[in-house]
Amino acid sequence: MLWLIGLGMADGDISQRALDAMRKADRLFAEFYTSTWTGDLGKLEELLKKHIEVLSRERVEQEDEILEQAREKRVAFLVPGDPLVATTHADILARARAAGIKVEVIHAPSIISAIGETGLHVYKFGPPVSLPQPQKDYHPSSPFEKIRANLRAGLHTLVILDTGMRAQQALEMLEKNGMEQSVVVAARLGTKDASIAYGKIKDLKKQDFGRPPHVIVVPGELHFTEKEFLESL
Amino acid sequence: MLWLIGLGMADGDISQRALDAMRKADRLFAEFYTSTWTGDLGKLEELLKKHIEVLSRERVEQEDEILEQAREKRVAFLVPGDPLVATTHADILARARAAGIKVEVIHAPSIISAIGETGLHVYKFGPPVSLPQPQKDYHPSSPFEKIRANLRAGLHTLVILDTGMRAQQALEMLEKNGMEQSVVVAARLGTKDASIAYGKIKDLKKQDFGRPPHVIVVPGELHFTEKEFLESL
Repeated sequence: MLWLIGLGMADGDISQRALDAMRKADRLFAEFYTSTWTGDLGKLEELLKKHIEVLSRERVEQEDEILEQAREKRVAFLVPGDPLVATTHADILARARAAGIKVEVIHAPSIISAIGETGLHVYKFGPPVSLPQPQKDYHPSSPFEKIRANLRAGLHTLVILDTGMRAQQALEMLEKNGMEQSVVVAARLGTKDASIAYGKIKDLKKQDFGRPPHVIVVPGELHFTEKEFLESL
Repeated sequence: MLWLIGLGMADGDISQRALDAMRKADRLFAEFYTSTWTGDLGKLEELLKKHIEVLSRERVEQEDEILEQAREKRVAFLVPGDPLVATTHADILARARAAGIKVEVIHAPSIISAIGETGLHVYKFGPPVSLPQPQKDYHPSSPFEKIRANLRAGLHTLVILDTGMRAQQALEMLEKNGMEQSVVVAARLGTKDASIAYGKIKDLKKQDFGRPPHVIVVPGELHFTEKEFLESL
């Protein structure tokens, strides 16, 4: 038996159903590389009086540890945000089902819906885009192509940054790829400490948004209520 | 003070943060017309030992009752799913901020991320579409135009049905608008009783999917892992 459990974005986001499953589980695993969780894992362990083993990307994606344990034991796999927003977890769900392991998904708040705090309508977003940390020989152009495709269709784009990456770095990348319009920067969305800013890339990139997680929205065509909201920030 | 609180999709989806806020609130309101909540309101009232007043669409959208109460008192407004997926609630957030009322948004699981249970990648969805109950003189074509725009871009479309509407009726509407491809029907997603089916519209429309909520996904281009997942259903 496998529970795929979302932790949401902040400490208090854990649902009653998630806590019940964690209490029933024989083994608890967690990962924090697909996105940032601002909660306190130690406090959760104390509440449950159980150890939670944090897995690296390699142990989640290359080894079949979680599924092997779940064949015999009741395993809970805790992940930041909603458990099925990251493709990795959808893949674990598919492999577990194919192997005949019973899986229950316990959903949680995710940036995909929390982005509504910017006042932008969820119904006007095109596909979200992940912006990876640039590497020495790896400067993918596809995120910017996807943003441009959304813009051509009048749609907003949620730009999800690599774990730990800051808005300033992402804004520099947007600028290098020829963008100079107004964008939204949202920091720590879904927590009590959230902050949202709207302005030109060249101005926002000089600002400090505090600790991550940060996301960016490149807005498409703005409805007047969206425009009013952003301009009131 | 106003808390905009998401109830998620099922009974156990309420977060610790949401319960804390409900306990602190002087007045509790709820609405269930923007989408379906499969939970039990009576049980929640018992747990809180407080009355929750259910508001009609008119009282939410035409009267400023919630905001007027929130000027003086600590008001919690409970809504199904995530509080900012429906445009109505984003509008209340905007008006509360404009009126200088302190607002805290408490997020919850939403169909927007739970749709990942279909094995379709969240990153490949275009904008979601709402399908209203057809009225005597009201047969909007815009939902179908939006689905076609997503299809042209290779993107999936989440089709959110009017509260209480069944998949069969929506499938008939898709068919009448010239669609005949394979689609996904998901019933009671995010609950323990979820069921998902994949097939041709003409076959699925003969099936009974049990009680609502139902949603439909019109898939765009399928990644082989998505195709495998759907075909294993």
